[in-house]
Amino acid sequence: MTSQSVPHYDIVIVGAGPVGLMLSTLLARWGYKIRHIDNRPEPTATGRADGIQPRSLDLLRNMGLKPAIMAHKPARVYEVAFWDPPKGGDGIERTGTWASCPSFIDARYPFTTLLHQGLIERAFIADLEKNNVEIVRPWTIKDFTSDEASNPEYPVEVQLEHIDGFAQETIRAKYLFSGEGARSFVRQKLGIQVRHKDPISYVWGVMDGVVKTDFPDIKMKCTIHSREGSIMVIPREDNMVRLYIQIASSTDPDFNPRKTATEEEVQDYAKKILQPYSIEWERVEWYSVYPIGQGISDNYTLDHRVFMGGDACHTHSPKAGQGMNTAFLDAQNLAWKIHLVEAGFADRSLLKTYEFERKEVAETLLSFDNKYAKLFSQKPPSASAVAAANESESAPSAEAQSDNAFIQTFKESCEFTSGYGVKYQPSVITWSPDHPAQSPNIHPAGNKLRPGRLLINADVTRVVDANVVHLEQEVPSNGSFRIFVFAGKSSTTAAALRDLEQGLHKRNSFYAAYQRQDIAQVSHHEKHNPHSLFYTFCIIFAGRRQDVEISRDVPGLLAQYRGHVYADDQWNRRVPDATASAHAKMGFDQERGGVVVVRPDGYVGIVTSLVEGSGTLDALNAYFSSFCTKKLSQESAQL
Amino acid sequence: MTSQSVPHYDIVIVGAGPVGLMLSTLLARWGYKIRHIDNRPEPTATGRADGIQPRSLDLLRNMGLKPAIMAHKPARVYEVAFWDPPKGGDGIERTGTWASCPSFIDARYPFTTLLHQGLIERAFIADLEKNNVEIVRPWTIKDFTSDEASNPEYPVEVQLEHIDGFAQETIRAKYLFSGEGARSFVRQKLGIQVRHKDPISYVWGVMDGVVKTDFPDIKMKCTIHSREGSIMVIPREDNMVRLYIQIASSTDPDFNPRKTATEEEVQDYAKKILQPYSIEWERVEWYSVYPIGQGISDNYTLDHRVFMGGDACHTHSPKAGQGMNTAFLDAQNLAWKIHLVEAGFADRSLLKTYEFERKEVAETLLSFDNKYAKLFSQKPPSASAVAAANESESAPSAEAQSDNAFIQTFKESCEFTSGYGVKYQPSVITWSPDHPAQSPNIHPAGNKLRPGRLLINADVTRVVDANVVHLEQEVPSNGSFRIFVFAGKSSTTAAALRDLEQGLHKRNSFYAAYQRQDIAQVSHHEKHNPHSLFYTFCIIFAGRRQDVEISRDVPGLLAQYRGHVYADDQWNRRVPDATASAHAKMGFDQERGGVVVVRPDGYVGIVTSLVEGSGTLDALNAYFSSFCTKKLSQESAQL
Repeated sequence: MTSQSVPHYDIVIVGAGPVGLMLSTLLARWGYKIRHIDNRPEPTATGRADGIQPRSLDLLRNMGLKPAIMAHKPARVYEVAFWDPPKGGDGIERTGTWASCPSFIDARYPFTTLLHQGLIERAFIADLEKNNVEIVRPWTIKDFTSDEASNPEYPVEVQLEHIDGFAQETIRAKYLFSGEGARSFVRQKLGIQVRHKDPISYVWGVMDGVVKTDFPDIKMKCTIHSREGSIMVIPREDNMVRLYIQIASSTDPDFNPRKTATEEEVQDYAKKILQPYSIEWERVEWYSVYPIGQGISDNYTLDHRVFMGGDACHTHSPKAGQGMNTAFLDAQNLAWKIHLVEAGFADRSLLKTYEFERKEVAETLLSFDNKYAKLFSQKPPSASAVAAANESESAPSAEAQSDNAFIQTFKESCEFTSGYGVKYQPSVITWSPDHPAQSPNIHPAGNKLRPGRLLINADVTRVVDANVVHLEQEVPSNGSFRIFVFAGKSSTTAAALRDLEQGLHKRNSFYAAYQRQDIAQVSHHEKHNPHSLFYTFCIIFAGRRQDVEISRDVPGLLAQYRGHVYADDQWNRRVPDATASAHAKMGFDQERGGVVVVRPDGYVGIVTSLVEGSGTLDALNAYFSSFCTKKLSQESAQL
Repeated sequence: MTSQSVPHYDIVIVGAGPVGLMLSTLLARWGYKIRHIDNRPEPTATGRADGIQPRSLDLLRNMGLKPAIMAHKPARVYEVAFWDPPKGGDGIERTGTWASCPSFIDARYPFTTLLHQGLIERAFIADLEKNNVEIVRPWTIKDFTSDEASNPEYPVEVQLEHIDGFAQETIRAKYLFSGEGARSFVRQKLGIQVRHKDPISYVWGVMDGVVKTDFPDIKMKCTIHSREGSIMVIPREDNMVRLYIQIASSTDPDFNPRKTATEEEVQDYAKKILQPYSIEWERVEWYSVYPIGQGISDNYTLDHRVFMGGDACHTHSPKAGQGMNTAFLDAQNLAWKIHLVEAGFADRSLLKTYEFERKEVAETLLSFDNKYAKLFSQKPPSASAVAAANESESAPSAEAQSDNAFIQTFKESCEFTSGYGVKYQPSVITWSPDHPAQSPNIHPAGNKLRPGRLLINADVTRVVDANVVHLEQEVPSNGSFRIFVFAGKSSTTAAALRDLEQGLHKRNSFYAAYQRQDIAQVSHHEKHNPHSLFYTFCIIFAGRRQDVEISRDVPGLLAQYRGHVYADDQWNRRVPDATASAHAKMGFDQERGGVVVVRPDGYVGIVTSLVEGSGTLDALNAYFSSFCTKKLSQESAQL
């Protein structure tokens, strides 16, 4: 076989669980050539992960996949209930409940969505089929090499084999991704070690089924401690319920990681724990026992050509329902970075931020996993402590103040489990005072946005069709930076907006540097990327929709984003006195506005003021320059 | 062919447009045997109706069909813009906008959804397929007879024929329904006349296509009057736009109902009207010219076996986008009445209320159609008048008061076009002071519900799973009455609730009279109809979710509706000071509550207070007795 007859791909993805499917789906939409294999003959049939956290649902909505998920009528968890033995009595009693995603978190979907992993996988697979990507099954990876020196464009050679061994294939690719799970062949071959943060490991039993019970909270998430033991209850679609039971812990005197229990033993155990309530199984859909320890991979890549994500990089207990969600965000994080590099926008060094950002999240997840386990095993919080913790800004009561440590952990837990707690550390794409871009216009006083955190949610009215929309959802997952120009009052900012637009025309502005090659052929219906796949502009005026006239208020080429011009005229309960609630939520002056650059994954990159002269554009050029392939002009800079 | 070999059906439905499909879909779900034919070889390919009004979207959601509609990304109309010639100048200018469904209407979806009729039809057809109902195409009806005397159970004989004449079939049915459209064979054969309310008729041109234009409101609904003529603009899915152009009116001196215009003529006409803006067509999807007059059928049925609905009964201008919506509600109205009769709950005379209710709505539609046309042809309202009209309760300004007539018409128009204006007249199913059910407990003072109007929307928290839900959507379109027990504070109403439950056990209560025959085999997962297909109970407590304990607060058999027990603990902006917003919106005392019986179509039937003793149940029994097959006990009545 000559080198020329070897099939060439942009990326080979191994494993079609959540992390592989998310990566594949995004890259397929953006036009990349993908070879995606999985060693299972079919998608997940039963069991496995099932919890979609609020922030992941935002992402799925942004990808247009939320309706396909919701069509299966998943269970929605809004509250967690705690059950404990009554003082000096037998049985169990409810000792408290808390919100799964309390109102201090500004979430669109303040609940966890519970649905069988196979149905979630199928939503991705259906989307992939639209882009002509097929998961090749059951195939596995046999070997690979990566050598940029010998083949700078397609440095990775991969050997694939049918699971039954009767067919082999060698292919070349720009990238290889392992979404193989905890026993990753790729990780082993690279010789990357898994570190165990917490030496304790557990054996878990998990059972999905339909039950008949008089336990009143069977449709809630519950943590039940009784004198007989502990279980966790998770409601599921189709009247199902999942029970997690800890069968053994390495702290047990006679711990055996191969300890197991039969279906009947686990059911008997659950019956004892739930007393005085009764429980009978009508049907068991899935039952499994598995040992699990906390582990984290030393690296997510060695050469920025062969990457890993998901369970291949981090394992932990199933309690907090974070596995699939962390996998989704690993893949999303890598996808746009590969895209920016391959599309010629970003320097290859951008890929270093993948491990930098996502390994930190995994470290946080593992230490949280410990804290969370302790939180659940401790004496449950008092009702007043939970109430105080639920109230965001208001001063806690005297009683609640004594619970401050709890409140702190509670809040962190909720932020973390909801997915809103992710905070990326400073880097070239996440501005901080140490960033190369320096200007008094950057990160203006008063703004409430934080680089590395998600854009704050806001409702606004789209000007062209008067639709009330979720601003943070308006640009789909297109791999582009999102430049939100909060334009305040047109009467105040007209000159600043005009200067920004004028600056874009200058040689080596990011507009001039990264124009689409097909710009002359772009349809006038193109809403998101009329000029470049690198960014999408959104312009938000503080005022009523009927007072915005795009032809008068939006200058020059910015007017080509007419489908992304908004009026900030929707009342919001979180800022009830604000006349421009989106500006107020972001912390922008509603006369003068400000500019937010949001990364393609929805996290804030940099915030600047909107000023007359070149200051705003200079700041944006400086930000993009720090990771782009071209040095953007700052010739008129007043930095 | 002997009589026994003739196939027997519950209903034969002719025509698979919106009215036929809605009827078929509901009856198929409720287990009826249906023969459904259509004379077209395929569902609608292009054109026809496209506007789903807010109230219709509520209905589609209640049927679970909203996601299938929304998957096509329909256009959403939130505002209507008016364009007129400037004073003394050429061209056109925007003279005002108004909300399509202003905030004084308490709508879940305050917009019109615009989507090609064929895609809407396909959502229904896919649902029918799940219930094994196929639309037989292209077949037509050749003849029918209806004779209850000779065959009381299957009185209707129908002769069907393939459109090409090569196959015929004779079948028998309990009912025949014509959803054939304006040229209904069934109506003609019955000799039912169509009356023309307004002698004026029009010729309309309608064009769907994709355009390139600098007209700023191309994604809004617009009424454009210029010195060159008038058009109406309706945005559509997939960047399409529909233009309606009135080509001729019977008031023209040289009126010819066969007058026509070519595609190019209409485009040239539109170009002139839109000046100074330019418009070019990239693609025309559909173009049609059709004469239309206002007409209403004298009867919707003669014998309550052969029925008609939709365009077979009423025709009018397309301006207000009411055709498909009125058709949906015709079918829904008939479906549950046939079901209640055939399931043995209601006396056959219930069927009389179909024509009684729906013909009145059609009359209103036709007179509204006239008013609406005038409203659009008049001088447009001032901005302040529109603003005043948008504010529901607040006193209009002095200037706006001078526009009172306009405000009145505006409000009526919005209510009507949104679908929330429908108000059924008093009958056995719609309580009024003349109803047979009489008691001081009926229609208690303070309640804001009105028999014959929709249940007011409210958000509540479902107790079993803490999900925040739309109360009015909680019982799906299952053909059952919905009995909402607003139970106030349990501490106050415990005895009343217990007395209501005790009364249900009495011989000849509606509970005892209409129990399911399979009641012993009903699954404990059955959420809506554990006791009877006749009704579903919902119980709403004023208070926080965590303070409701179903086993303690919901007595006896009512606890079997545990999936329909709610806490009224959600804040609502329309009643910002209420601690129990659902109670407040209904006008119920939050200590003492009240009971609402909602018809299977979502309209209020009767409202009673929740009292100790037999008063509440007596009132409910009396209401149901007025149309049920059995006389329900009022032995302990204090009426």
